[in-house]
Amino acid sequence: MPRQGTKIRTVMEAIRTRIAARTYPPDARLPSVRALAKNMQVSVSTVVEAYDRLAAEGVIGARAGSGFYVLGHAAPLALAHIGPPRERDVDPLWVSRQSLEAADAMPKPGCGWLPASWMDVDGLRSALRAVARADGAVLADYACPLGLPALRELLARRMAAVGIEVPAEQIMLTDSGTQALDMVCRFLLEPGDTVLVDDPCYFNFQALLRAHRVQVVGVAYTPQGPDIAAFAACLQQHAPRLYITNSGIHNPTGGTLSASTAHRLLQLAEQAGMVVVEDDIFADFEVQPAPRLAAFDGLARVIHIGSFSKTVSASLRCGYIAARADWIDSLVDLKIATSFSGGFLAAQVVRTVLTQSGYRKHLEALRARLARERDRAVERLGALGITPWLVPRAGMFLWCRLPDGIDAARLARASLQEGVVLAPGNVFSPSLSARNLMRFNVSQLTDSRVFDVLAQALHQMRTAP
Amino acid sequence: MPRQGTKIRTVMEAIRTRIAARTYPPDARLPSVRALAKNMQVSVSTVVEAYDRLAAEGVIGARAGSGFYVLGHAAPLALAHIGPPRERDVDPLWVSRQSLEAADAMPKPGCGWLPASWMDVDGLRSALRAVARADGAVLADYACPLGLPALRELLARRMAAVGIEVPAEQIMLTDSGTQALDMVCRFLLEPGDTVLVDDPCYFNFQALLRAHRVQVVGVAYTPQGPDIAAFAACLQQHAPRLYITNSGIHNPTGGTLSASTAHRLLQLAEQAGMVVVEDDIFADFEVQPAPRLAAFDGLARVIHIGSFSKTVSASLRCGYIAARADWIDSLVDLKIATSFSGGFLAAQVVRTVLTQSGYRKHLEALRARLARERDRAVERLGALGITPWLVPRAGMFLWCRLPDGIDAARLARASLQEGVVLAPGNVFSPSLSARNLMRFNVSQLTDSRVFDVLAQALHQMRTAP
Repeated sequence: MPRQGTKIRTVMEAIRTRIAARTYPPDARLPSVRALAKNMQVSVSTVVEAYDRLAAEGVIGARAGSGFYVLGHAAPLALAHIGPPRERDVDPLWVSRQSLEAADAMPKPGCGWLPASWMDVDGLRSALRAVARADGAVLADYACPLGLPALRELLARRMAAVGIEVPAEQIMLTDSGTQALDMVCRFLLEPGDTVLVDDPCYFNFQALLRAHRVQVVGVAYTPQGPDIAAFAACLQQHAPRLYITNSGIHNPTGGTLSASTAHRLLQLAEQAGMVVVEDDIFADFEVQPAPRLAAFDGLARVIHIGSFSKTVSASLRCGYIAARADWIDSLVDLKIATSFSGGFLAAQVVRTVLTQSGYRKHLEALRARLARERDRAVERLGALGITPWLVPRAGMFLWCRLPDGIDAARLARASLQEGVVLAPGNVFSPSLSARNLMRFNVSQLTDSRVFDVLAQALHQMRTAP
Repeated sequence: MPRQGTKIRTVMEAIRTRIAARTYPPDARLPSVRALAKNMQVSVSTVVEAYDRLAAEGVIGARAGSGFYVLGHAAPLALAHIGPPRERDVDPLWVSRQSLEAADAMPKPGCGWLPASWMDVDGLRSALRAVARADGAVLADYACPLGLPALRELLARRMAAVGIEVPAEQIMLTDSGTQALDMVCRFLLEPGDTVLVDDPCYFNFQALLRAHRVQVVGVAYTPQGPDIAAFAACLQQHAPRLYITNSGIHNPTGGTLSASTAHRLLQLAEQAGMVVVEDDIFADFEVQPAPRLAAFDGLARVIHIGSFSKTVSASLRCGYIAARADWIDSLVDLKIATSFSGGFLAAQVVRTVLTQSGYRKHLEALRARLARERDRAVERLGALGITPWLVPRAGMFLWCRLPDGIDAARLARASLQEGVVLAPGNVFSPSLSARNLMRFNVSQLTDSRVFDVLAQALHQMRTAP
């Protein structure tokens, strides 16, 4: 019986996905029970039951004598219903919500940011006081559509330092790095398109792509970037429209793109006519700059995005997109249509922080602190049999294998009951092939209670599986 | 020849719209030349020429012996190509870009906001200084997904004051009012859906809806809200999914929803199963509160959105959505997926301004100033033969008819050459039936140069048509 139940759910999810992707548009007739059963290699009774349940949910409806039809507006977009079926609790949105909704005092080794006490809060205070004295237009007016010129010029200089030649007019500010990616997706994707991501990748890429009703395909990630043979095969098989990656410090593994991988990846992308989005959100953590795809490609088919949420402030919403001039012009229209320009204020505060002498010193201290905490975390996790897949050169993440084949989602649920938020591997894995892996944030591992909770939960799982 | 040229463009636009709305999905075969000619009541040669031009643009392609097909990824989303054909320069994005990109010193009677010098800049300065002393988490951390609890509680009290009963847990903060509407559209709409707006309506509603690839239908607006008979006919004919309006101070007319229109409109919406979005962005300009649809309906099918861009600051990005509890929960997922939560900072500054005693006094002075400038503008525009469609009770807008049937887009282009940004009627009109109307912002009419430019341009048009 459980196998029959699983099959019914699989059929239901497949139909939901096709409805969401408009493969079955509203009012379309669904395949006959017999045809779908054959096509999905399940029994006729499984399909009958799946159709009945979807009809009960109001997703589809029966018409006398002519089968089942997609109901026009059965349900508003529910992200949980798009994409492959996932174990409850390890949905990509699970970690986000747990981390963002957690009480301040809760240890969150599963979250993707530094504790506020690690940030340059003094620099933020002085920048806010400086901006409080700025011109009235900075405080009260809309910004020009591209955003604060002085910050765009600063960004152009910062990019030049890592080899990306781009004038300030080809940089558009956004409200966040995620919003930058969202706008690029709106600009380039249509429902039903295929998008390539790393496997594993930042879980919110998957949540965002679901909202765009596209198909997500993962390519195996190595410590030097995507596996090039697998990458070539994916282009051949799926003809993806877009590939999204982190070149600098990869989330969740902490890997770094090598120059040879970058070169081959871009050759393949060019042959396939595919656009590449490089999310550079962790740039300021780097000890030595990694190769940037945007530098190799000169922004011909690479779109470079980023933000300062991780290194300046997550409370100040400010990200950016650097891209081809013609694309930036269309993105300005899209920005106006969907968020009516932006303001100068957050950009001015970010710019002030970035140009204060204290920021550079803050970053140096931060990198050293992360290195120390990384070493300590490797040791303390190691004592529990939790071993890193890679010890990264920089950044806050450690992507680790759990001992004895323990299921990361189970460990995360058990730890949550003890007040510790973890990030189980499968939320990062489009193929759900990381059930034994876990991402740890070393800056959130300083509370030794976390290790007590982990030790206890691991012990219980070993003794009562 | 011009008539043939117009017909070709009409056919091209119709095909582009159907491709954008996925009525013709990628790789779909287009109708035969003969069938489309018959269907659109044009000649075969018109369709042949339209197909040829679209093929030259790379939108469609020919396959030997089997007609034309939609090319998979001919072009990324270009907002200019979605929606009905419009005269160049009166695209809804035209006014936004002209206003946002204009030099500070340029008079902008076409823009939709107050000059920075009219805003409570002192209040903003003191709020920024106060927030500079806040807890580190406020300055550096992500906010909880719904946004700053204290601002949501304040919003709940403000809404209660106009009869909208909603707990703070059913209010979600966004980065702007436009982003609030964008999220609602993503949640409720699918490409190809129909959305009802007022005719005229805020031009950016149309730009935003284009980005969602939906069909926009306008309903004639009266000084008391939409024309109810026309509204009922639209529901019957188009079965729209959504109706978007301003209840308080309508943009661009300055009209106010009456209680009887509100009541009948909601009855019709209920019968039709349609959702209503009420954009309350001008609330703080009101002298006497208008009926709110959200108050009548108790947030059953009305979604109430707003922001403080017009009355506190456009530079601080902060808007909100109040809706049914189950919808808010799904909207939180969408917010995380598309902008990864938000920050506390802008919300904290907005809250501080709103609760300062100076804000109330500022608003009182502002309303009085707007009333004075409205009277003055009516008089000075009247001297040029420009007459208001309605003299509104509150707000910054005057929706005016031009003398002698003069074309507003021509007047706007002529004035732009003299450095004055205007908002011609047709950017607000989905049916393009407002070519003789113009929206003026009375707060941006204090520079007498504007009237000189208008007088001269009107004179030239009358003498050299």
